[in-house]
Amino acid sequence: MIFLLGGRGYVGRAYQRFFQQQGLACRSLSRTEVDYTNREVLTELLREQPPEFLINCAGYTGQPNVDACEQHKADCLLGNAVLPGLVRDACEAAGVAWGHISSGCIYNGSKPGGAGFTEEDEPNFTFRHNNCSFYSGSKALGEEVLAGARQCYLWRIRIPFDNLDHPRNYLTKLMRYERLLEARNSLSDLNECVAATWQCWSKRAPFGIYHVTQPGSVTTREVVELIKESGVCRKEFRFFTSEVEFMRLAAKTPRSNCVLDSGKLARAGLALTEIRDAIRRALRRWQQ
Amino acid sequence: MIFLLGGRGYVGRAYQRFFQQQGLACRSLSRTEVDYTNREVLTELLREQPPEFLINCAGYTGQPNVDACEQHKADCLLGNAVLPGLVRDACEAAGVAWGHISSGCIYNGSKPGGAGFTEEDEPNFTFRHNNCSFYSGSKALGEEVLAGARQCYLWRIRIPFDNLDHPRNYLTKLMRYERLLEARNSLSDLNECVAATWQCWSKRAPFGIYHVTQPGSVTTREVVELIKESGVCRKEFRFFTSEVEFMRLAAKTPRSNCVLDSGKLARAGLALTEIRDAIRRALRRWQQ
Repeated sequence: MIFLLGGRGYVGRAYQRFFQQQGLACRSLSRTEVDYTNREVLTELLREQPPEFLINCAGYTGQPNVDACEQHKADCLLGNAVLPGLVRDACEAAGVAWGHISSGCIYNGSKPGGAGFTEEDEPNFTFRHNNCSFYSGSKALGEEVLAGARQCYLWRIRIPFDNLDHPRNYLTKLMRYERLLEARNSLSDLNECVAATWQCWSKRAPFGIYHVTQPGSVTTREVVELIKESGVCRKEFRFFTSEVEFMRLAAKTPRSNCVLDSGKLARAGLALTEIRDAIRRALRRWQQ
Repeated sequence: MIFLLGGRGYVGRAYQRFFQQQGLACRSLSRTEVDYTNREVLTELLREQPPEFLINCAGYTGQPNVDACEQHKADCLLGNAVLPGLVRDACEAAGVAWGHISSGCIYNGSKPGGAGFTEEDEPNFTFRHNNCSFYSGSKALGEEVLAGARQCYLWRIRIPFDNLDHPRNYLTKLMRYERLLEARNSLSDLNECVAATWQCWSKRAPFGIYHVTQPGSVTTREVVELIKESGVCRKEFRFFTSEVEFMRLAAKTPRSNCVLDSGKLARAGLALTEIRDAIRRALRRWQQ
């Protein structure tokens, strides 16, 4: 049995679909059923009914986007920094191996020369760098809270997309936003990433941090070209003239745009599809 | 009726004594009785039995000192950054005026020339300055969470002391530590500060941030001289040769040492006793 926290979110639902497809028993814990924000309650459950593995994909992302986190700072810290620590304590007390969905949004830009950040690189879009959104700051604090955790995977995903039209799908967002910001990013094919994270555990890859993103990076304009090529959306895409204009007109807080290196995951035997191929595949299978 | 959160702590007990002396009805909420970490529970209580005022002196300080916060980061964030936000939401939803005990430990040093930091000065010992303990970082985030709060006092106290021998009393600490760190600080006479914070409300001082510290500042050696003069403790006091030695031998995380300006409180008609006079008074009335 696998326990899932945050199973009703965009990432959590992908895990539920995956485990169902795989014929693996998965229990999505809802807070009304089990208050897993209470360390004692979760510890007792894990001791009495120990799962094979636990996945925490609960988190506070803000609706419709991270700007909302600036207005809900306590909830943001609770969901992204405190909850991971409570889950860690409960899993360690009960001896349960687990994985935490973190985010690549704690980085900005790329390394000198354009290479992606590796798991060894210190996050550079954090409260400690005083340059970030409250969302990114809270995610980075969550990683500090998890430093040294036993039997724990920390999976950093980055701007997930898949083939299902959905407000949280990056491809949907690009098609729906009035204007777009040109920037270079690594991305995560949600279904492939979900499978890869599970394989970290099923293949007993060493615990630790993994960047779970497609190899390579793309600019917004490149993704727009792929969308146009696919025929999924034929609208005229418009762009902000600069990040300054974007911040002035559309955003309340800075956004992370970053390139991640997922070589560690590949070296663990879990190579993902190249980023453009993964985007083309999602668009080819696009479902409204 | 006044509601008190964190009434069992060092500061909370001083409030309870004060309200008892004043003949004011005070209800110290315990978490087992009312889970005030749950926004809905607290909101409902405040709506059904609205108090005249609420004081939040709950917080996570670490035992025996702030070094412990480095090992309990989730609890530290929960107590110092998330809880104030939940209390704010509940008080605003129920229309209850309230005060939050914050800390001067979000500053380090003094202004150029040695003057104390005023409420207008940006905290400089925080995650955003990447120079602080996890404790100070969490307190500063708590203040970010409270920015713009309605009907709210934010009282920054700093190294409290009083005339009762107690592990959390600064004078007791100086007498018990094996070796001391020489540094200049502002301090808070606990009982005088508790009275002054209540008077902020009873005299309807404008809501906002107040430094609730004794006018002036003292060095550790100056306080030691006052202790010796008082005859309360006649031991040989020993000092670390430098902050570097202190960090190497005695501390796991940096300490704030700072001078605060409490002129705003004085201008509101709530002048506190000069710092040396307040220390002498506590030592004169010293009780084991």
